[in-house]
Amino acid sequence: MRAAVMRDKRLVVDAIAEPKPGPGQVLVKTLACGICGSDLHMLKHAHRVLELSRRTGIPGVNAVLDLDRDVVMGHEFCAEILDYGPDTTRALKPGTRVCAFPVAMSGKGLETVGYSNDYPGGYGERMVVHEMLMVEVPNGLPAEHAALTEPLAVGVHAVELARLAGGEVPLVIGCGPVGLAVIAGLKLKGAGPIIAADFSPKRRALAETIGADIVVDPSQTSPYRRWQDAAAPEGYNPNDPMTFMGIGPQLAPCVAFECVGVPGVIQQIFEGSPRHARAVVVGACMEGDQFEPMFGVTKELNVQFAYGYTLDEYARCLRTIAEGQVDVTSLITGKVGVSGVAGAFEELGSPERHAKIIVEPWRD
Amino acid sequence: MRAAVMRDKRLVVDAIAEPKPGPGQVLVKTLACGICGSDLHMLKHAHRVLELSRRTGIPGVNAVLDLDRDVVMGHEFCAEILDYGPDTTRALKPGTRVCAFPVAMSGKGLETVGYSNDYPGGYGERMVVHEMLMVEVPNGLPAEHAALTEPLAVGVHAVELARLAGGEVPLVIGCGPVGLAVIAGLKLKGAGPIIAADFSPKRRALAETIGADIVVDPSQTSPYRRWQDAAAPEGYNPNDPMTFMGIGPQLAPCVAFECVGVPGVIQQIFEGSPRHARAVVVGACMEGDQFEPMFGVTKELNVQFAYGYTLDEYARCLRTIAEGQVDVTSLITGKVGVSGVAGAFEELGSPERHAKIIVEPWRD
Repeated sequence: MRAAVMRDKRLVVDAIAEPKPGPGQVLVKTLACGICGSDLHMLKHAHRVLELSRRTGIPGVNAVLDLDRDVVMGHEFCAEILDYGPDTTRALKPGTRVCAFPVAMSGKGLETVGYSNDYPGGYGERMVVHEMLMVEVPNGLPAEHAALTEPLAVGVHAVELARLAGGEVPLVIGCGPVGLAVIAGLKLKGAGPIIAADFSPKRRALAETIGADIVVDPSQTSPYRRWQDAAAPEGYNPNDPMTFMGIGPQLAPCVAFECVGVPGVIQQIFEGSPRHARAVVVGACMEGDQFEPMFGVTKELNVQFAYGYTLDEYARCLRTIAEGQVDVTSLITGKVGVSGVAGAFEELGSPERHAKIIVEPWRD
Repeated sequence: MRAAVMRDKRLVVDAIAEPKPGPGQVLVKTLACGICGSDLHMLKHAHRVLELSRRTGIPGVNAVLDLDRDVVMGHEFCAEILDYGPDTTRALKPGTRVCAFPVAMSGKGLETVGYSNDYPGGYGERMVVHEMLMVEVPNGLPAEHAALTEPLAVGVHAVELARLAGGEVPLVIGCGPVGLAVIAGLKLKGAGPIIAADFSPKRRALAETIGADIVVDPSQTSPYRRWQDAAAPEGYNPNDPMTFMGIGPQLAPCVAFECVGVPGVIQQIFEGSPRHARAVVVGACMEGDQFEPMFGVTKELNVQFAYGYTLDEYARCLRTIAEGQVDVTSLITGKVGVSGVAGAFEELGSPERHAKIIVEPWRD
């Protein structure tokens, strides 16, 4: 089959072996697959990603990947059932469109579909997925919209980990695909006002479209100031001793979502947060980072790191998109065939032009 | 009155002006006052502490301190009522022994008693405290034991912020006064097995006395390995795909308490923690620190920073000590008069010899 293959740190189009469904598995035809920022990072820094995965010791996170062998990336996919392997219930007919939780259980343990030598991802014509991890796409939802299930689930999961109890004022730092998914997740929860910050006008416009109530250009206004202003009741003064002791007027609970993933943002949040604020770190910073713990200590901050999503959240996100609760249309800023993947990776380096580019590997 | 005064980065014994109780305030005679690690840090690094306080912007944390003027430190005190200022209810008779939440509300805003130019702390013969922040010492409790209310409250507060739901396996990193208070707080909550780690045999022995179930010498055994072993059910295998997906046997919830406060310990916790572990940072690291966010991300760790305590927790700790629920006797490893404070500060540099030294400023 044809695929955009990661080989020697480059993406090349080539014919590779057909994947074969094993016990419990299903052969599917890829209809649409989003390009994830993690894929861009993997192409550039695969050795560093693998070294980190080995050190963290978390199974399923690329730890068994052999970079000397071909890898077909792509884990944000919608596909069509072609054929079943042995030991399957075959509950859904061939031709049915599905999304699938992109994990594979093999003799090596857990692997991620799209970060595996044995389980090619959605930048190829066909894939193998587990029958028990498939979710049927509700009739009529375009495949390119269903493909946004996975990135939306990342945002919805991060919002779940924020354990919102009502009344929180959320700040979303960074409005790339992860930040936009968090905004969508917050909107689904009815949280707000949602404040969103990004240097890019295009991304701020997307943030408003998907549900941000207030957008901030950090080169003009401090997002942290805007956030605290939105959380402050009439007559609030943080330096009032009664307020400090918890008796006078208090800020609404403040929750920041770190959706940038570069060194220094966590320290910015530490400096910009009010006392008792919470931060959810969704951005995947692959480098070492620095911070001053005393900001966290004297403010009694809480930092929750978020990664991935559950199968339940994944299935829920597909339904949410199909029911029109989140309009993902505006997030798709480009579509390419299999030969356009390498160019799309280049283009995604510029935040001004794109949010999500969809690969349709069945066309050139 | 006589006091051990911080002046030009040194501790000197001198006669200073008598403190006078203002409206709502009470003049007390210091009976006993513990030496806190923060005081040692303040003596050595006062300018850095003040700079950090100003940058964090938290009121009451030394931000109004003038280092060119005298400071009498000491905020872990038990005292005896001498006289009342105006606008007081005088509910407790002179001669009554009290502890007091060491905060003063002045025209400058909030100040900490013992980190103030105007509110001398417990290394002097007399102090002024707020009547509404006083708690009566239950009859018969020795003043030196009542003085341990404040450090115990730090540990009890950190344990409160850990939001234990039952079944957690706690690990306490560092068994200085903060770590010992956390162990006591965990014991009061019935949490366990409590695993405690310290390089010092003396501190490990104190940890066992105050309630640790398992003590670990990190030069011999990894505290993190011991912790995960204690949390693992029969047949637990973190690399089992079913366990990873949340279906197979799971670890008991793991909560680590960082009670060291030096750079690098947070990264150690990030590396040593299992997935979904929580860390409560109680140690006050005054320097910049480094960590790798991806350990937090892929493990979905939660980090809660803790600072101080509430008035309710403070009052509860005094009752807890008075009722014998925590035996603080073993924590007191020395007592000095006012002229012995400077020497006690020197001695406390050696973790092998001391936990808490009590100052009795009424004697030489």
